[in-house]
Amino acid sequence: MLKEFTPPKDADKEALKEEIKALREKLLAQQQLVRSSNLPVIVLVEGWAAAGKGSLINELINEIDPRFYNVVSPVSVPQAEARYPFLYPYACAIPENGKIMFYDSGWMEGAVRKFLRREITKKQYKELIRSSIEFERQLRDGGYLILKLFLHIEKEEQRDRLTALRENYETEWRVTEDDLWQHREYPLFRETYDEFMEETGDLIPWHVLDGSRKRLATRDALKLLVGLIDKGLEKGRYIGKPFKENFPLLNMPYLREIDLSPALEDKEYKKELKTLQDRLSELHNTIYRKRIPVILCYEGWDAAGKGGNIRRVARPLDPRGFDVIPIASPEPHELNRQYLWRFWTRLPRSGHFCIFDRTWYGRVMVERLEGFCTEDDWKRAYNEINEFERQLTDWGAVVLKFWIHIDQDTQLARFNDRQNTPEKQWKLTEEDWRNREKWPQYEEAIDEMLQKTSTENAPWFIIESNDKKYARIKTLKIVIEALEKACEERL
Amino acid sequence: MLKEFTPPKDADKEALKEEIKALREKLLAQQQLVRSSNLPVIVLVEGWAAAGKGSLINELINEIDPRFYNVVSPVSVPQAEARYPFLYPYACAIPENGKIMFYDSGWMEGAVRKFLRREITKKQYKELIRSSIEFERQLRDGGYLILKLFLHIEKEEQRDRLTALRENYETEWRVTEDDLWQHREYPLFRETYDEFMEETGDLIPWHVLDGSRKRLATRDALKLLVGLIDKGLEKGRYIGKPFKENFPLLNMPYLREIDLSPALEDKEYKKELKTLQDRLSELHNTIYRKRIPVILCYEGWDAAGKGGNIRRVARPLDPRGFDVIPIASPEPHELNRQYLWRFWTRLPRSGHFCIFDRTWYGRVMVERLEGFCTEDDWKRAYNEINEFERQLTDWGAVVLKFWIHIDQDTQLARFNDRQNTPEKQWKLTEEDWRNREKWPQYEEAIDEMLQKTSTENAPWFIIESNDKKYARIKTLKIVIEALEKACEERL
Repeated sequence: MLKEFTPPKDADKEALKEEIKALREKLLAQQQLVRSSNLPVIVLVEGWAAAGKGSLINELINEIDPRFYNVVSPVSVPQAEARYPFLYPYACAIPENGKIMFYDSGWMEGAVRKFLRREITKKQYKELIRSSIEFERQLRDGGYLILKLFLHIEKEEQRDRLTALRENYETEWRVTEDDLWQHREYPLFRETYDEFMEETGDLIPWHVLDGSRKRLATRDALKLLVGLIDKGLEKGRYIGKPFKENFPLLNMPYLREIDLSPALEDKEYKKELKTLQDRLSELHNTIYRKRIPVILCYEGWDAAGKGGNIRRVARPLDPRGFDVIPIASPEPHELNRQYLWRFWTRLPRSGHFCIFDRTWYGRVMVERLEGFCTEDDWKRAYNEINEFERQLTDWGAVVLKFWIHIDQDTQLARFNDRQNTPEKQWKLTEEDWRNREKWPQYEEAIDEMLQKTSTENAPWFIIESNDKKYARIKTLKIVIEALEKACEERL
Repeated sequence: MLKEFTPPKDADKEALKEEIKALREKLLAQQQLVRSSNLPVIVLVEGWAAAGKGSLINELINEIDPRFYNVVSPVSVPQAEARYPFLYPYACAIPENGKIMFYDSGWMEGAVRKFLRREITKKQYKELIRSSIEFERQLRDGGYLILKLFLHIEKEEQRDRLTALRENYETEWRVTEDDLWQHREYPLFRETYDEFMEETGDLIPWHVLDGSRKRLATRDALKLLVGLIDKGLEKGRYIGKPFKENFPLLNMPYLREIDLSPALEDKEYKKELKTLQDRLSELHNTIYRKRIPVILCYEGWDAAGKGGNIRRVARPLDPRGFDVIPIASPEPHELNRQYLWRFWTRLPRSGHFCIFDRTWYGRVMVERLEGFCTEDDWKRAYNEINEFERQLTDWGAVVLKFWIHIDQDTQLARFNDRQNTPEKQWKLTEEDWRNREKWPQYEEAIDEMLQKTSTENAPWFIIESNDKKYARIKTLKIVIEALEKACEERL
């Protein structure tokens, strides 16, 4: 796209000015509709150093109300990125409904730099490209409007601009070592940008603008943005269709096939617990030192014993190095963004444990059954979640998912016990009883979830928990085995 | 406190074990009451390197449900701290109601290291101590229970522990350069810790525990925590009383004295606007380079022209370097924490502009008038806000506060205009009409606010906005003058 870039034809200056003015008025009027229709808009502005990305964004936001947009430049905060998954800074910055977010450089620049700096291998770079495509698709399918721009200047133009910036005391600091490196390696960057755009342009197209003619670029960008919003307003919020992806799935049994009789004697339990917890405590050191992120996901029937299980796993961990994250129903500001956002923002730093007490699988269980999302939404979620988890394991995370399983009789006995024990009454809510009535529907949803989302990189484990002691020991063993493997494999 | 530390008497091992067990059971029972009474609890664990802070925290949380507590170690994330005010990482980490937050090192360690590393002057160190006292008091007055522990070991003990850690391959990495430096400078650190505790122990006392005897320290810490929670549960949530502080206040006129006639001709406005915006754009470069944080606060009558005014100020700024933060009524997760939390978490990095469209002053206006907080709460807030803003200016921020002022007739005319113009109707809500009816009460509250919170470091400016053009130019001039002064004064 850049190699054979043909600059657009010159336009009459006065005509251009008029056109820009009209487009700005249009955008100003649209802003209100974007807000009232709850449409979230992402404008990704990539491009060469000194191509004028900041100033283009300035031209775009010229008239619109600053309460309705934000500008982020995630690439400029490398330390934040360093210990998080690749998409983390971009995913955390997505706009809420009714707002426009401008990314001043984004995932393209992030991926390309990592690759050209040789911080990652070719294979890892390919994974980042795949992640970028998935990220864009998931947002689009979640109703986001996305515009992708690349601001292009030729090497000579870049040289002149960088020189001008460096010769002025007030602007000198704006030219970074990275910029100079990019200039020296201009052909290499051009080739890489081109490849990236080629590989990521199918679903949401790239638009290359001529950065050497600011007014023209402004007109074109405004036109694209206004056009995109117009189309979005006309069609209403898009809901992506489910689609099939070929994730290599593990064979999972159905819940009805699970033998729930395994149990442990108290004496054996205590002995094993101590040994396993000691081992996990040791392993946490290595995990920390090797900076391996660990994500444990707990789902299970009400009263299955998630809390006690989590406590036994958390107990031997260094409290500085782990977080237990209870997931309740989403808050308003969370509902106002793509559903995975509230999990992205809670991810652990590398070297840390993060234990989710309930997870993103709410999408295909409670949200599905209670009608909190559309059928397309939850059907699409199997894939989206598989992608999300692959992005986590691409990053290097150990992702383990536990379904804490009991049968209906055991649940009833525990509910009754909670009801009759004053200190435990708070654990039992009306909702628990209501959910219990929907056991068959839940079982169907859970079975489907286990069938469709148990991948090699992020497997599900069904934990028989009619006997809680057995369940805890089994969970600990699985965690330890996975961590030992990870510690062995990594430097 | 450390110099003449007398280790507690030895206790019978078995008796200690029993005591700890009983205390843990007590804590386990309390956890549920803490939750249902919505009490937030902070446990600050300071102490020497290798004194066993992490392992003490582990002993404390031994039995409690991980959903009800969290552990943070803000000191270990220096990069996050570097471009934010001193209290930022601690203030952002405060627990929500009904939860316990353990700080594994906190503001004491943060302040002492900065000082001993000579990153700050003695005067700045004193400011950090003052900030720490204010921070603790504000939290206590907002209903937080706070326990402050210091885990003490003697120099020889520290040497032995650091040596043992370093000799084991798996734990070697845990000993940092900072730890070794602390050990070399043990007497200096001891003196500084002692001073810090002396100066910050009046309101919320420090408790020094003997780190060389883990079981004893565990028992004592548990006893203190259980005692604190017991008292808190018994007395119910504390609401701090207002108190007088001697902030040097600027003389402010009353709103009724303001002459609202100033106006600008269109031609003059346009000319001035351009000149001032160009100047502000230049200044933004210097602000960025000198890493000066800028915080602009907008308050004003409905329809006074805040939005348009903000737009004119934001326009010339580099969009990568500023954020406009619209403040609406607090979300549930924000209501669940001290009221300044939602502003702490939105502060700009140094070198950035942050424009608050409505601010923390909601506390003494809408929250006061609508009864969203108690009388003690809003009366205390004048002082708390003055302290908060001084913490910001101590950090180096330029803090400017604008009251965008109009009279009742002008408001009515603008309301009517909004009502009659389809594109503007969204700007006018039922609430605006309701607020308008309370004009006299609001005027009284605003006058009191202007009288009590206009400080030299964070002054209020009343902006006559019957003529919006005049208002914009006046605001721009004030911003530019303040920034020029700041740029001149700083390196």
